[in-house]
Amino acid sequence: MNSLHSLTDEKDTQRVEAFSDGVFAIVITLLIFNVHLPDPALVTQHGLLAELGKAWAVYLGFALSFFFILVMWINHHRLFTLIRRTDNGLLLFNGLLLFGVTVVPFTTSIMTEYLNHSEQQTAIILYSGWFFVVAVMFNLLWRHASRGNRLFSPYADLRLAAAINRAYNLGLTMYLISVLLAFVSPPISLAITTAMGVFFALPNQRMSQLAAVE
Amino acid sequence: MNSLHSLTDEKDTQRVEAFSDGVFAIVITLLIFNVHLPDPALVTQHGLLAELGKAWAVYLGFALSFFFILVMWINHHRLFTLIRRTDNGLLLFNGLLLFGVTVVPFTTSIMTEYLNHSEQQTAIILYSGWFFVVAVMFNLLWRHASRGNRLFSPYADLRLAAAINRAYNLGLTMYLISVLLAFVSPPISLAITTAMGVFFALPNQRMSQLAAVE
Amino acid sequence: MNSLHSLTDEKDTQRVEAFSDGVFAIVITLLIFNVHLPDPALVTQHGLLAELGKAWAVYLGFALSFFFILVMWINHHRLFTLIRRTDNGLLLFNGLLLFGVTVVPFTTSIMTEYLNHSEQQTAIILYSGWFFVVAVMFNLLWRHASRGNRLFSPYADLRLAAAINRAYNLGLTMYLISVLLAFVSPPISLAITTAMGVFFALPNQRMSQLAAVE
Amino acid sequence: MNSLHSLTDEKDTQRVEAFSDGVFAIVITLLIFNVHLPDPALVTQHGLLAELGKAWAVYLGFALSFFFILVMWINHHRLFTLIRRTDNGLLLFNGLLLFGVTVVPFTTSIMTEYLNHSEQQTAIILYSGWFFVVAVMFNLLWRHASRGNRLFSPYADLRLAAAINRAYNLGLTMYLISVLLAFVSPPISLAITTAMGVFFALPNQRMSQLAAVE
Repeated sequence: MNSLHSLTDEKDTQRVEAFSDGVFAIVITLLIFNVHLPDPALVTQHGLLAELGKAWAVYLGFALSFFFILVMWINHHRLFTLIRRTDNGLLLFNGLLLFGVTVVPFTTSIMTEYLNHSEQQTAIILYSGWFFVVAVMFNLLWRHASRGNRLFSPYADLRLAAAINRAYNLGLTMYLISVLLAFVSPPISLAITTAMGVFFALPNQRMSQLAAVE
Repeated sequence: MNSLHSLTDEKDTQRVEAFSDGVFAIVITLLIFNVHLPDPALVTQHGLLAELGKAWAVYLGFALSFFFILVMWINHHRLFTLIRRTDNGLLLFNGLLLFGVTVVPFTTSIMTEYLNHSEQQTAIILYSGWFFVVAVMFNLLWRHASRGNRLFSPYADLRLAAAINRAYNLGLTMYLISVLLAFVSPPISLAITTAMGVFFALPNQRMSQLAAVE
Repeated sequence: MNSLHSLTDEKDTQRVEAFSDGVFAIVITLLIFNVHLPDPALVTQHGLLAELGKAWAVYLGFALSFFFILVMWINHHRLFTLIRRTDNGLLLFNGLLLFGVTVVPFTTSIMTEYLNHSEQQTAIILYSGWFFVVAVMFNLLWRHASRGNRLFSPYADLRLAAAINRAYNLGLTMYLISVLLAFVSPPISLAITTAMGVFFALPNQRMSQLAAVE
Repeated sequence: MNSLHSLTDEKDTQRVEAFSDGVFAIVITLLIFNVHLPDPALVTQHGLLAELGKAWAVYLGFALSFFFILVMWINHHRLFTLIRRTDNGLLLFNGLLLFGVTVVPFTTSIMTEYLNHSEQQTAIILYSGWFFVVAVMFNLLWRHASRGNRLFSPYADLRLAAAINRAYNLGLTMYLISVLLAFVSPPISLAITTAMGVFFALPNQRMSQLAAVE
């Protein structure tokens, strides 16, 4: 099978990436489809702008999740500039990560539904907690692919790989801290989770420098 | 990282385009899924054709948005005949544009829901206004990629780039005028917005000539 | 611009095909998502199998539309084994065809909803009629691309192009007959529409022979 | 037409795979969109975690179906490392398989809806039974493509093809046994169906060895 694999390497990751792109594209699009129109009766009473304005937290929550899914896609894309070979483990770990991604709209709905509700804290713990779970899934995929550089392109930039290692170690720690803080102060937890999204949205070099400082 | 990038250039934009195509395809398809069947009780009373006919404005609104999303995709496609390299900024500006695109079904639902309603004008301002926002996002993406031709293919047709510049400057102005006019006359605003869609659906040469005349 | 086009030909159709594949894939998948679970109260009373069985016409209708969308995709794929160049007209005619495709789930829902209802005939006229509209859209796309072979690959099999011409002329006639017959006998109309689906699902050679006999 | 085919081989399977990837990606993503938020009134009364906890069987059922769709995609991917040519039969058998895949969310909803209900056994028979139907569809596709190696790449690994043959014969038998057992003991049927999912998730070599032992 080795000879087959060396022949079909390029093709294998192309299809994994296409399948993953499809899942990311659907999740990021359907997020917004979960936002509902305001109640027509209330609109007639208070006006359209007033009713849309009342739902600002919902819109902000969905915009935040859109940003997180985008950052996840950018990071998936970044990993696959290095990964060129596939094996069965990669397909399964990538599938596990996609499972994590498809659940984000569900946790987003829970959070936006229960803001300003007695269950707000539980909702934010679940929302932040799921991003920690996704971070663990990213780590599993990355560790599987990068151990001994085994699924890398021969042209892989090993300094980029080292930068990702540093960033993922930092990321895992910070997401865990964020979940634990959610039990104490949900707003601080949300702020740290958002900051980690911004961190992973940075270009490789900048991200690498920040993670090294840590 | 530069050596890596020069090796993987082709691949990088391919995946950005695939992801974007996925989002455009889902948004354009789901537009129509937002159109609901007529109420069975009313159909039994007045007949199917009569009930479908009553909803003509809804169908027209969704067909209009389908056309706009198609034109946006054609223009995205046009930009990426020039853009061949990616960087972190391109991924983020492209993500911002996709955010704009995924919101269009929401503003479309608002407009079609509130036609012939006391809130009609607000709904049309939001609908036209969002297209202005998307035009701004297209400009940000384009300016980031075209500054110094930095993300262009070495074979990029610079006359096409100049034509796009002219068209985007005109587009931004016209969409802004359209939003402002919506406060005075919603139908004229809708007409200008539609005319801009037709303008951006034209072939490059024709679009370029019209923008130059302006 | 001509020199640019000759350089990016391959890429242009690839992206049109990717976008179209996305739309076809979403439409064909969401068809089934329109099928609803039986009413739990009725299931408790009559049993699950009995309630599922009552909805057989709905399932058959959706399976039929799945088959039609599949056949449309196969024919789109067949056209693009010949078409290798794109121009603005192709993007717009292809967009128009995709509009036709995305409406099929709507006409399918209308038909399955109004079977065994006083409005059954109107529903079947709309269902069959829309397939005639889609056939017209296929013809517009094909005529635009094939006039003078202008968007063809230089390696295009011109016998295949001639076979498609014959099949499309036959198809347009038969779909029109089917719509007209729906005013007289809906079941015969549905049968002809289905037969045309089977005809376009045949391999090129067989389809070509049958169309030649006509 | 033969000369045409030898020129466009690579392209043909690429588009079949892209279309199939799209369908798999949409089905696997929308599975989770079928999971609903808990009833707000009950959440206020019993707490969010308690209400989410009550629905554990629903979440488990959807995670199970996510895993099955993923395994189907991995196996589709595995078949197309061998298949490089397409013909009309392949397009139709692949379309039939995709039909099978798109129905899985429907059978999943039925199963999760009727757990702990008098109709539980019927629901599990339908759920397990449909996986048997999908296994038959996989066999039809595979037999069509592999007969005389006719749609294979000239570089196809024939030992891998033989391994798939053995695994598919075993799979068909086991899925049939699983359906029949569902009439006697639904839990054992579900366990065998799950075990077959794990079996098909194994790497080729391991799967081949296990199938050979059988």
